[in-house]
Amino acid sequence: MTYCVGLLLDGGLVMLSDSRTNAGVDHISTFRKMTVWEKPGERVIVLLTAGNLAITQAVVGLLEEGIENEDGEGGETMETVPSMYGAARLVGAALREVYRVDGESLNAQSTEFNASFILGGQIKDRRMRLFQIYSAGNFIEATDDTPYFQIGEHKYGKPILDRVATHRTSLVGGAKLALISMDSTLRSNISVGLPLDLLIYRKDGLAVSLHRRIDEDDAYFNDIRQRWSESLGKAFGELPDPDWLAACQPEGAKA
Amino acid sequence: MTYCVGLLLDGGLVMLSDSRTNAGVDHISTFRKMTVWEKPGERVIVLLTAGNLAITQAVVGLLEEGIENEDGEGGETMETVPSMYGAARLVGAALREVYRVDGESLNAQSTEFNASFILGGQIKDRRMRLFQIYSAGNFIEATDDTPYFQIGEHKYGKPILDRVATHRTSLVGGAKLALISMDSTLRSNISVGLPLDLLIYRKDGLAVSLHRRIDEDDAYFNDIRQRWSESLGKAFGELPDPDWLAACQPEGAKA
Repeated sequence: MTYCVGLLLDGGLVMLSDSRTNAGVDHISTFRKMTVWEKPGERVIVLLTAGNLAITQAVVGLLEEGIENEDGEGGETMETVPSMYGAARLVGAALREVYRVDGESLNAQSTEFNASFILGGQIKDRRMRLFQIYSAGNFIEATDDTPYFQIGEHKYGKPILDRVATHRTSLVGGAKLALISMDSTLRSNISVGLPLDLLIYRKDGLAVSLHRRIDEDDAYFNDIRQRWSESLGKAFGELPDPDWLAACQPEGAKA
Repeated sequence: MTYCVGLLLDGGLVMLSDSRTNAGVDHISTFRKMTVWEKPGERVIVLLTAGNLAITQAVVGLLEEGIENEDGEGGETMETVPSMYGAARLVGAALREVYRVDGESLNAQSTEFNASFILGGQIKDRRMRLFQIYSAGNFIEATDDTPYFQIGEHKYGKPILDRVATHRTSLVGGAKLALISMDSTLRSNISVGLPLDLLIYRKDGLAVSLHRRIDEDDAYFNDIRQRWSESLGKAFGELPDPDWLAACQPEGAKA
Protein backbone atom coordinates (compact mmCIF):
# COMPACT_ATOMS: atom_id res chain seq x y z
CA MET A 1 0.00 0.00 0.00
CA THR A 2 0.94 3.62 -0.35
CA TYR A 3 0.14 7.01 1.03
CA CYS A 4 0.85 10.14 -0.99
CA VAL A 5 -0.39 13.68 -0.51
CA GLY A 6 0.04 16.82 -2.58
CA LEU A 7 -0.91 20.36 -1.56
CA LEU A 8 -1.44 23.32 -3.89
CA LEU A 9 -0.71 26.37 -1.76
CA ASP A 10 -0.53 30.04 -2.63
CA GLY A 11 3.22 29.85 -2.09
CA GLY A 12 3.91 26.64 -3.95
CA LEU A 13 3.52 22.88 -3.93
CA VAL A 14 4.20 20.33 -1.21
CA MET A 15 4.43 16.68 -2.29
CA LEU A 16 4.99 13.78 0.11
CA SER A 17 5.10 10.03 -0.48
CA ASP A 18 5.92 6.99 1.57
CA SER A 19 8.00 4.16 0.13
CA ARG A 20 6.97 0.85 1.62
CA THR A 21 7.16 -0.90 -1.73
CA ASN A 22 10.07 -0.46 -4.04
CA ALA A 23 8.73 1.56 -6.94
CA GLY A 24 10.65 4.07 -8.95
CA VAL A 25 12.23 4.16 -12.36
CA ASP A 26 15.44 6.00 -12.89
CA HIS A 27 15.71 8.99 -15.10
CA ILE A 28 16.38 12.60 -14.17
CA SER A 29 15.71 12.13 -10.53
CA THR A 30 13.46 9.53 -9.07
CA PHE A 31 12.27 8.78 -5.61
CA ARG A 32 10.47 5.58 -4.90
CA LYS A 33 6.89 6.71 -5.42
CA MET A 34 7.84 10.17 -6.56
CA THR A 35 9.21 10.93 -9.99
CA VAL A 36 10.54 14.41 -10.73
CA TRP A 37 11.19 16.02 -14.10
CA GLU A 38 13.14 19.20 -13.56
CA LYS A 39 14.74 21.61 -16.00
CA PRO A 40 15.77 24.51 -13.78
CA GLY A 41 14.32 27.78 -15.06
CA GLU A 42 11.95 25.97 -17.39
CA ARG A 43 9.87 23.29 -15.66
CA VAL A 44 9.31 21.22 -12.56
CA ILE A 45 6.86 18.32 -12.82
CA VAL A 46 6.32 15.91 -9.93
CA LEU A 47 4.35 12.67 -10.19
CA LEU A 48 3.24 10.63 -7.16
CA THR A 49 1.99 7.12 -7.82
CA ALA A 50 -0.19 4.58 -6.03
CA GLY A 51 -1.64 1.25 -7.01
CA ASN A 52 -0.38 -1.72 -8.99
CA LEU A 53 3.37 -1.19 -9.31
CA ALA A 54 3.60 -2.85 -12.72
CA ILE A 55 1.03 -0.38 -14.02
CA THR A 56 2.50 2.73 -12.42
CA GLN A 57 6.03 1.82 -13.52
CA ALA A 58 4.80 1.20 -17.06
CA VAL A 59 3.13 4.63 -17.02
CA VAL A 60 6.28 6.33 -15.80
CA GLY A 61 8.27 4.40 -18.41
CA LEU A 62 6.01 5.67 -21.20
CA LEU A 63 6.23 9.23 -19.88
CA GLU A 64 10.02 8.95 -20.11
CA GLU A 65 10.13 7.26 -23.49
CA GLY A 66 7.51 9.36 -25.19
CA ILE A 67 4.02 8.53 -26.29
CA GLU A 68 1.43 9.77 -28.71
CA ASN A 69 -0.50 12.64 -27.15
CA GLU A 70 -4.22 13.22 -27.62
CA ASP A 71 -3.57 15.38 -30.66
CA GLY A 72 -2.14 12.30 -32.34
CA GLU A 73 1.44 13.56 -32.14
CA GLY A 74 3.95 10.93 -31.09
CA GLY A 75 7.02 11.13 -28.92
CA GLU A 76 5.65 13.57 -26.34
CA THR A 77 7.39 13.25 -22.95
CA MET A 78 7.24 15.02 -19.61
CA GLU A 79 10.28 16.98 -20.76
CA THR A 80 8.59 18.28 -23.91
CA VAL A 81 4.92 18.59 -23.00
CA PRO A 82 4.07 22.33 -23.24
CA SER A 83 1.66 22.69 -20.26
CA MET A 84 0.68 21.08 -16.98
CA TYR A 85 -2.76 20.38 -18.43
CA GLY A 86 -0.99 18.64 -21.30
CA ALA A 87 1.11 16.72 -18.76
CA ALA A 88 -2.06 15.50 -17.00
CA ARG A 89 -3.49 14.41 -20.36
CA LEU A 90 -0.22 12.67 -21.14
CA VAL A 91 -0.41 10.66 -17.92
CA GLY A 92 -3.97 9.76 -18.91
CA ALA A 93 -2.81 8.73 -22.38
CA ALA A 94 -0.02 6.62 -20.90
CA LEU A 95 -2.50 4.91 -18.56
CA ARG A 96 -4.81 4.11 -21.48
CA GLU A 97 -1.90 2.72 -23.45
CA VAL A 98 -0.94 0.46 -20.52
CA TYR A 99 -4.57 -0.59 -20.21
CA ARG A 100 -4.72 -1.35 -23.93
CA VAL A 101 -1.72 -3.66 -23.63
CA ASP A 102 -2.23 -5.21 -20.18
CA GLY A 103 -5.89 -4.64 -19.31
CA GLU A 104 -7.28 -7.80 -20.82
CA SER A 105 -4.66 -10.06 -19.23
CA LEU A 106 -5.12 -8.42 -15.85
CA ASN A 107 -8.86 -8.81 -16.18
CA ALA A 108 -8.49 -12.47 -17.15
CA GLN A 109 -6.61 -13.00 -13.89
CA SER A 110 -9.15 -10.98 -11.88
CA THR A 111 -6.53 -8.35 -11.10
CA GLU A 112 -8.00 -4.91 -10.80
CA PHE A 113 -6.53 -2.24 -13.08
CA ASN A 114 -5.62 -0.11 -10.11
CA ALA A 115 -3.46 2.99 -10.41
CA SER A 116 -3.80 6.59 -9.30
CA PHE A 117 -1.57 9.62 -9.52
CA ILE A 118 -1.02 13.08 -8.15
CA LEU A 119 0.63 15.36 -10.66
CA GLY A 120 1.89 18.81 -9.73
CA GLY A 121 4.24 21.36 -11.15
CA GLN A 122 4.77 24.44 -13.22
CA ILE A 123 6.11 25.23 -16.68
CA LYS A 124 7.64 28.60 -17.52
CA ASP A 125 5.14 31.42 -18.17
CA ARG A 126 2.28 29.23 -17.05
CA ARG A 127 0.56 28.77 -13.73
CA MET A 128 1.36 26.15 -11.16
CA ARG A 129 -1.21 23.31 -11.11
CA LEU A 130 -2.07 20.15 -9.22
CA PHE A 131 -4.07 17.22 -10.61
CA GLN A 132 -5.34 13.89 -9.41
CA ILE A 133 -5.51 11.28 -12.16
CA TYR A 134 -7.70 8.18 -11.92
CA SER A 135 -7.06 4.74 -13.34
CA ALA A 136 -9.33 5.46 -16.33
CA GLY A 137 -7.00 8.32 -17.26
CA ASN A 138 -9.49 11.05 -16.41
CA PHE A 139 -8.49 13.67 -13.88
CA ILE A 140 -9.53 16.52 -11.61
CA GLU A 141 -7.70 19.68 -10.61
CA ALA A 142 -7.14 21.15 -7.15
CA THR A 143 -8.73 24.52 -6.44
CA ASP A 144 -8.66 27.03 -3.60
CA ASP A 145 -11.64 25.22 -2.06
CA THR A 146 -9.92 21.83 -2.15
CA PRO A 147 -6.22 22.54 -2.15
CA TYR A 148 -4.99 18.99 -1.61
CA PHE A 149 -5.17 15.50 -3.06
CA GLN A 150 -4.39 12.16 -1.48
CA ILE A 151 -3.90 8.75 -3.08
CA GLY A 152 -3.47 5.30 -1.59
CA GLU A 153 -4.29 4.73 2.06
CA HIS A 154 -5.74 8.20 2.50
CA LYS A 155 -8.39 8.04 5.20
CA TYR A 156 -6.24 7.97 8.35
CA GLY A 157 -4.47 11.16 7.37
CA LYS A 158 -7.49 13.05 6.06
CA PRO A 159 -9.02 14.48 9.25
CA ILE A 160 -6.03 16.73 10.03
CA LEU A 161 -5.93 17.97 6.43
CA ASP A 162 -9.66 18.68 6.53
CA ARG A 163 -9.20 20.68 9.69
CA VAL A 164 -6.09 22.67 8.86
CA ALA A 165 -5.31 22.84 5.13
CA THR A 166 -6.28 25.93 3.16
CA HIS A 167 -4.65 27.44 0.10
CA ARG A 168 -3.29 30.14 2.41
CA THR A 169 -1.29 27.61 4.47
CA SER A 170 2.42 28.47 4.18
CA LEU A 171 4.84 26.16 2.42
CA VAL A 172 6.50 25.28 5.71
CA GLY A 173 3.06 24.79 7.27
CA GLY A 174 2.08 22.60 4.34
CA ALA A 175 5.18 20.46 4.76
CA LYS A 176 4.45 20.01 8.47
CA LEU A 177 0.82 19.23 7.69
CA ALA A 178 1.78 16.59 5.14
CA LEU A 179 4.18 15.03 7.66
CA ILE A 180 1.56 14.97 10.43
CA SER A 181 -0.99 13.49 8.03
CA MET A 182 1.60 10.85 7.12
CA ASP A 183 2.30 10.21 10.81
CA SER A 184 -1.36 9.29 11.45
CA THR A 185 -1.23 6.93 8.49
CA LEU A 186 2.05 5.33 9.58
CA ARG A 187 0.64 4.69 13.03
CA SER A 188 -2.61 3.10 11.89
CA ASN A 189 -1.53 1.16 8.81
CA ILE A 190 1.45 -1.12 8.76
CA SER A 191 1.50 -1.17 4.96
CA VAL A 192 2.63 2.44 4.78
CA GLY A 193 6.23 2.95 5.83
CA LEU A 194 9.37 5.02 6.01
CA PRO A 195 11.42 6.40 4.41
CA LEU A 196 9.41 9.31 3.05
CA ASP A 197 10.13 11.54 0.10
CA LEU A 198 9.27 15.19 0.69
CA LEU A 199 9.44 17.73 -2.11
CA ILE A 200 8.74 21.44 -1.89
CA TYR A 201 8.36 23.66 -4.92
CA ARG A 202 8.13 27.42 -4.46
CA LYS A 203 5.75 29.09 -6.91
CA ASP A 204 7.48 30.57 -9.97
CA GLY A 205 10.80 29.15 -8.76
CA LEU A 206 10.97 26.75 -11.72
CA ALA A 207 13.36 24.60 -9.71
CA VAL A 208 12.85 22.17 -6.83
CA SER A 209 13.26 24.15 -3.57
CA LEU A 210 13.81 21.10 -1.43
CA HIS A 211 13.66 17.37 -1.66
CA ARG A 212 14.46 15.31 1.31
CA ARG A 213 14.49 11.64 2.13
CA ILE A 214 13.12 11.21 5.66
CA ASP A 215 13.99 7.95 7.40
CA GLU A 216 13.82 6.45 10.90
CA ASP A 217 16.74 8.58 12.03
CA ASP A 218 15.34 11.92 10.91
CA ALA A 219 15.56 13.99 14.11
CA TYR A 220 13.01 16.57 13.02
CA PHE A 221 10.33 14.11 11.95
CA ASN A 222 10.81 12.09 15.13
CA ASP A 223 10.57 15.26 17.18
CA ILE A 224 7.30 16.48 15.65
CA ARG A 225 5.78 13.00 15.79
CA GLN A 226 6.55 12.90 19.49
CA ARG A 227 5.30 16.43 20.12
CA TRP A 228 2.15 15.82 18.13
CA SER A 229 1.40 12.66 20.05
CA GLU A 230 1.94 14.42 23.37
CA SER A 231 -0.16 17.40 22.30
CA LEU A 232 -3.03 15.16 21.24
CA GLY A 233 -2.88 13.28 24.52
CA LYS A 234 -2.82 16.55 26.45
CA ALA A 235 -5.63 18.11 24.40
CA PHE A 236 -7.69 14.98 24.90
CA GLY A 237 -7.04 15.00 28.62
CA GLU A 238 -8.20 18.61 28.86
CA LEU A 239 -11.61 17.98 27.33
CA PRO A 240 -14.27 18.55 29.97
CA ASP A 241 -16.52 15.78 31.25
CA PRO A 242 -20.24 16.18 30.63
CA ASP A 243 -22.72 16.39 33.51
CA TRP A 244 -24.65 13.51 32.06
CA LEU A 245 -21.69 11.17 32.46
CA ALA A 246 -21.67 11.62 36.24
CA ALA A 247 -23.62 8.38 36.60
CA CYS A 248 -20.66 6.52 35.11
CA GLN A 249 -18.00 7.91 37.41
CA PRO A 250 -16.86 5.46 40.07
CA GLU A 251 -17.74 8.07 42.71
CA GLY A 252 -21.20 8.57 41.39
CA ALA A 253 -21.92 4.92 40.81
CA LYS A 254 -25.53 4.11 41.34
CA ALA A 255 -25.43 0.36 41.68
CA MET B 1 -22.52 4.20 5.49
CA THR B 2 -22.04 3.76 9.18
CA TYR B 3 -19.52 4.28 11.90
CA CYS B 4 -19.75 2.32 15.14
CA VAL B 5 -17.16 1.84 17.86
CA GLY B 6 -17.15 -0.30 20.98
CA LEU B 7 -14.59 -0.17 23.81
CA LEU B 8 -13.95 -2.87 26.39
CA LEU B 9 -12.52 -1.02 29.39
CA ASP B 10 -11.62 -2.21 32.86
CA GLY B 11 -14.59 -0.24 34.18
CA GLY B 12 -17.14 -1.27 31.58
CA LEU B 13 -18.26 -0.93 28.00
CA VAL B 14 -18.70 2.15 25.80
CA MET B 15 -20.71 1.71 22.61
CA LEU B 16 -21.34 4.47 20.08
CA SER B 17 -23.09 4.46 16.71
CA ASP B 18 -24.14 7.04 14.17
CA SER B 19 -27.53 6.88 12.48
CA ARG B 20 -27.32 8.24 8.99
CA THR B 21 -29.51 5.47 7.62
CA ASN B 22 -32.67 4.41 9.32
CA ALA B 23 -31.93 1.02 10.73
CA GLY B 24 -33.37 -0.40 13.89
CA VAL B 25 -36.03 -2.92 14.70
CA ASP B 26 -38.27 -2.41 17.69
CA HIS B 27 -38.22 -4.65 20.66
CA ILE B 28 -37.02 -4.01 24.21
CA SER B 29 -35.17 -0.86 23.35
CA THR B 30 -33.74 -0.07 20.00
CA PHE B 31 -31.60 2.71 18.70
CA ARG B 32 -31.07 3.08 15.00
CA LYS B 33 -27.87 1.07 14.61
CA MET B 34 -27.79 -0.04 18.22
CA THR B 35 -30.04 -2.73 19.61
CA VAL B 36 -30.12 -3.33 23.34
CA TRP B 37 -31.41 -6.35 25.22
CA GLU B 38 -31.58 -5.50 28.89
CA LYS B 39 -32.96 -7.42 31.85
CA PRO B 40 -31.81 -5.36 34.82
CA GLY B 41 -29.88 -7.48 37.28
CA GLU B 42 -29.58 -10.33 34.79
CA ARG B 43 -28.17 -9.20 31.42
CA VAL B 44 -27.22 -6.33 29.17
CA ILE B 45 -26.42 -7.16 25.54
CA VAL B 46 -25.72 -4.43 23.00
CA LEU B 47 -25.42 -5.03 19.25
CA LEU B 48 -24.06 -2.43 16.81
CA THR B 49 -24.64 -3.08 13.11
CA ALA B 50 -23.06 -1.96 9.85
CA GLY B 51 -23.54 -3.02 6.26
CA ASN B 52 -26.53 -3.95 4.15
CA LEU B 53 -29.56 -2.85 6.14
CA ALA B 54 -31.79 -5.65 4.89
CA ILE B 55 -29.24 -8.17 6.16
CA THR B 56 -28.62 -6.52 9.52
CA GLN B 57 -32.34 -6.04 10.14
CA ALA B 58 -32.98 -9.67 9.25
CA VAL B 59 -30.28 -10.73 11.71
CA VAL B 60 -31.75 -8.58 14.48
CA GLY B 61 -35.20 -9.95 13.63
CA LEU B 62 -33.99 -13.53 14.01
CA LEU B 63 -32.27 -12.70 17.28
CA GLU B 64 -35.60 -11.40 18.57
CA GLU B 65 -37.72 -14.22 17.20
CA GLY B 66 -35.44 -17.04 18.16
CA ILE B 67 -33.31 -19.32 16.04
CA GLU B 68 -31.67 -22.68 16.25
CA ASN B 69 -28.34 -22.38 18.02
CA GLU B 70 -25.22 -24.32 17.09
CA ASP B 71 -26.18 -27.12 19.46
CA GLY B 72 -29.22 -27.69 17.27
CA GLU B 73 -31.60 -26.31 19.86
CA GLY B 74 -34.28 -24.03 18.43
CA GLY B 75 -35.87 -20.87 19.74
CA GLU B 76 -32.76 -19.34 21.32
CA THR B 77 -32.94 -15.54 21.57
CA MET B 78 -30.76 -12.79 22.98
CA GLU B 79 -33.00 -12.90 26.03
CA THR B 80 -32.39 -16.58 26.69
CA VAL B 81 -28.85 -17.23 25.47
CA PRO B 82 -26.82 -18.25 28.55
CA SER B 83 -23.48 -16.54 27.80
CA MET B 84 -21.92 -13.71 25.78
CA TYR B 85 -19.95 -16.28 23.83
CA GLY B 86 -23.24 -17.99 23.06
CA ALA B 87 -24.67 -14.62 22.05
CA ALA B 88 -21.82 -14.10 19.58
CA ARG B 89 -22.41 -17.57 18.15
CA LEU B 90 -26.11 -16.80 17.92
CA VAL B 91 -25.41 -13.68 15.86
CA GLY B 92 -23.21 -15.84 13.63
CA ALA B 93 -25.97 -18.45 13.33
CA ALA B 94 -28.49 -15.74 12.45
CA LEU B 95 -26.15 -14.35 9.79
CA ARG B 96 -25.70 -17.80 8.27
CA GLU B 97 -29.46 -18.31 8.24
CA VAL B 98 -29.93 -14.98 6.42
CA TYR B 99 -27.20 -15.99 3.99
CA ARG B 100 -28.89 -19.35 3.40
CA VAL B 101 -32.15 -17.62 2.48
CA ASP B 102 -30.92 -14.46 0.70
CA GLY B 103 -27.30 -15.15 -0.28
CA GLU B 104 -27.99 -16.70 -3.67
CA SER B 105 -30.37 -13.93 -4.76
CA LEU B 106 -27.99 -11.23 -3.59
CA ASN B 107 -25.18 -12.96 -5.42
CA ALA B 108 -27.28 -13.21 -8.59
CA GLN B 109 -27.71 -9.45 -8.46
CA SER B 110 -24.02 -8.85 -7.72
CA THR B 111 -24.86 -7.46 -4.30
CA GLU B 112 -22.21 -8.19 -1.74
CA PHE B 113 -23.31 -10.02 1.39
CA ASN B 114 -22.04 -7.23 3.57
CA ALA B 115 -22.75 -7.04 7.28
CA SER B 116 -20.64 -6.60 10.39
CA PHE B 117 -21.40 -6.34 14.06
CA ILE B 118 -19.97 -5.31 17.38
CA LEU B 119 -21.49 -7.23 20.25
CA GLY B 120 -20.84 -6.33 23.86
CA GLY B 121 -22.39 -7.06 27.20
CA GLN B 122 -22.51 -9.11 30.32
CA ILE B 123 -24.71 -11.85 31.72
CA LYS B 124 -25.04 -12.46 35.45
CA ASP B 125 -22.17 -14.39 37.06
CA ARG B 126 -20.16 -14.19 33.86
CA ARG B 127 -17.56 -11.78 32.62
CA MET B 128 -18.18 -8.77 30.42
CA ARG B 129 -17.12 -9.37 26.81
CA LEU B 130 -16.85 -7.58 23.48
CA PHE B 131 -16.86 -9.27 20.05
CA GLN B 132 -16.60 -8.24 16.44
CA ILE B 133 -18.59 -10.50 14.12
CA TYR B 134 -17.86 -10.73 10.40
CA SER B 135 -20.30 -11.34 7.56
CA ALA B 136 -19.36 -15.04 7.45
CA GLY B 137 -20.57 -15.34 11.05
CA ASN B 138 -17.11 -15.88 12.50
CA PHE B 139 -15.90 -13.51 15.19
CA ILE B 140 -13.01 -12.21 17.28
CA GLU B 141 -12.91 -10.97 20.85
CA ALA B 142 -11.39 -7.79 22.27
CA THR B 143 -8.50 -8.18 24.68
CA ASP B 144 -6.43 -5.88 26.88
CA ASP B 145 -4.05 -5.41 23.94
CA THR B 146 -6.79 -4.41 21.55
CA PRO B 147 -9.59 -3.05 23.68
CA TYR B 148 -11.76 -1.63 20.91
CA PHE B 149 -13.55 -2.59 17.71
CA GLN B 150 -14.82 -0.42 14.90
CA ILE B 151 -17.18 -1.26 12.05
CA GLY B 152 -18.25 0.72 8.99
CA GLU B 153 -16.30 3.79 7.97
CA HIS B 154 -13.60 3.20 10.55
CA LYS B 155 -10.36 4.68 9.23
CA TYR B 156 -10.89 8.38 9.90
CA GLY B 157 -11.55 7.76 13.57
CA LYS B 158 -8.84 5.16 14.14
CA PRO B 159 -5.72 7.31 14.71
CA ILE B 160 -7.02 8.89 17.93
CA LEU B 161 -8.09 5.48 19.25
CA ASP B 162 -4.67 4.05 18.39
CA ARG B 163 -3.00 6.86 20.29
CA VAL B 164 -5.16 7.03 23.39
CA ALA B 165 -7.26 3.90 24.01
CA THR B 166 -6.08 1.34 26.53
CA HIS B 167 -8.09 -1.01 28.71
CA ARG B 168 -7.25 1.29 31.62
CA THR B 169 -9.03 4.26 30.03
CA SER B 170 -11.89 5.33 32.32
CA LEU B 171 -15.50 4.95 31.25
CA VAL B 172 -15.88 8.71 30.96
CA GLY B 173 -12.59 8.88 29.05
CA GLY B 174 -13.80 6.09 26.79
CA ALA B 175 -17.02 7.95 26.07
CA LYS B 176 -15.08 11.10 25.20
CA LEU B 177 -12.69 9.10 23.06
CA ALA B 178 -15.53 7.46 21.14
CA LEU B 179 -17.11 10.89 20.57
CA ILE B 180 -13.83 12.41 19.33
CA SER B 181 -13.26 9.42 17.07
CA MET B 182 -16.79 9.93 15.73
CA ASP B 183 -16.11 13.64 15.27
CA SER B 184 -13.18 12.94 12.94
CA THR B 185 -15.40 10.58 10.94
CA LEU B 186 -18.29 13.04 10.75
CA ARG B 187 -15.96 15.74 9.45
CA SER B 188 -14.35 13.65 6.76
CA ASN B 189 -17.23 11.49 5.55
CA ILE B 190 -20.60 12.89 4.66
CA SER B 191 -22.20 9.45 4.79
CA VAL B 192 -21.83 9.26 8.56
CA GLY B 193 -24.18 11.55 10.44
CA LEU B 194 -25.91 12.66 13.58
CA PRO B 195 -27.75 11.82 15.72
CA LEU B 196 -25.52 9.44 17.64
CA ASP B 197 -26.44 6.74 20.09
CA LEU B 198 -24.10 6.49 23.05
CA LEU B 199 -24.39 3.69 25.57
CA ILE B 200 -22.31 3.15 28.67
CA TYR B 201 -22.38 -0.06 30.68
CA ARG B 202 -20.57 -0.19 34.00
CA LYS B 203 -18.95 -3.58 34.69
CA ASP B 204 -21.07 -5.87 36.87
CA GLY B 205 -23.87 -3.29 36.84
CA LEU B 206 -26.13 -5.64 34.85
CA ALA B 207 -28.11 -2.59 33.75
CA VAL B 208 -27.45 0.15 31.22
CA SER B 209 -25.71 3.02 33.04
CA LEU B 210 -26.45 5.59 30.37
CA HIS B 211 -27.84 5.76 26.91
CA ARG B 212 -28.11 9.06 25.22
CA ARG B 213 -29.23 10.27 21.83
CA ILE B 214 -26.82 13.02 20.74
CA ASP B 215 -28.09 15.35 18.02
CA GLU B 216 -27.07 18.68 16.42
CA ASP B 217 -28.24 20.57 19.50
CA ASP B 218 -26.24 18.59 22.05
CA ALA B 219 -24.34 21.32 23.89
CA TYR B 220 -21.67 19.02 25.27
CA PHE B 221 -20.83 17.31 21.99
CA ASN B 222 -20.72 20.65 20.18
CA ASP B 223 -18.47 22.03 22.91
CA ILE B 224 -15.91 19.21 22.79
CA ARG B 225 -15.93 19.19 18.98
CA GLN B 226 -15.11 22.90 19.03
CA ARG B 227 -12.47 22.52 21.75
CA TRP B 228 -10.88 19.56 20.01
CA SER B 229 -10.68 21.43 16.74
CA GLU B 230 -9.12 24.45 18.44
CA SER B 231 -6.67 22.29 20.37
CA LEU B 232 -5.56 20.50 17.21
CA GLY B 233 -5.09 23.79 15.41
CA LYS B 234 -3.12 25.16 18.35
CA ALA B 235 -1.01 22.03 18.72
CA PHE B 236 -0.31 22.07 15.01
CA GLY B 237 0.67 25.74 15.13
CA GLU B 238 3.10 25.04 17.96
CA LEU B 239 5.09 22.42 16.06
CA PRO B 240 8.58 23.76 15.39
CA ASP B 241 9.89 24.41 11.89
CA PRO B 242 12.88 22.35 10.78
CA ASP B 243 16.16 24.01 9.84
CA TRP B 244 16.08 22.32 6.50
CA LEU B 245 12.89 24.12 5.54
CA ALA B 246 14.55 27.53 5.77
CA ALA B 247 15.07 27.51 2.00
CA CYS B 248 11.31 27.51 1.58
CA GLN B 249 10.57 30.48 3.81
CA PRO B 250 9.76 33.65 1.88
CA GLU B 251 12.56 35.43 3.78
CA GLY B 252 15.08 32.76 2.92
CA ALA B 253 14.07 32.41 -0.69
CA LYS B 254 16.98 31.56 -2.89
CA ALA B 255 15.55 32.36 -6.30
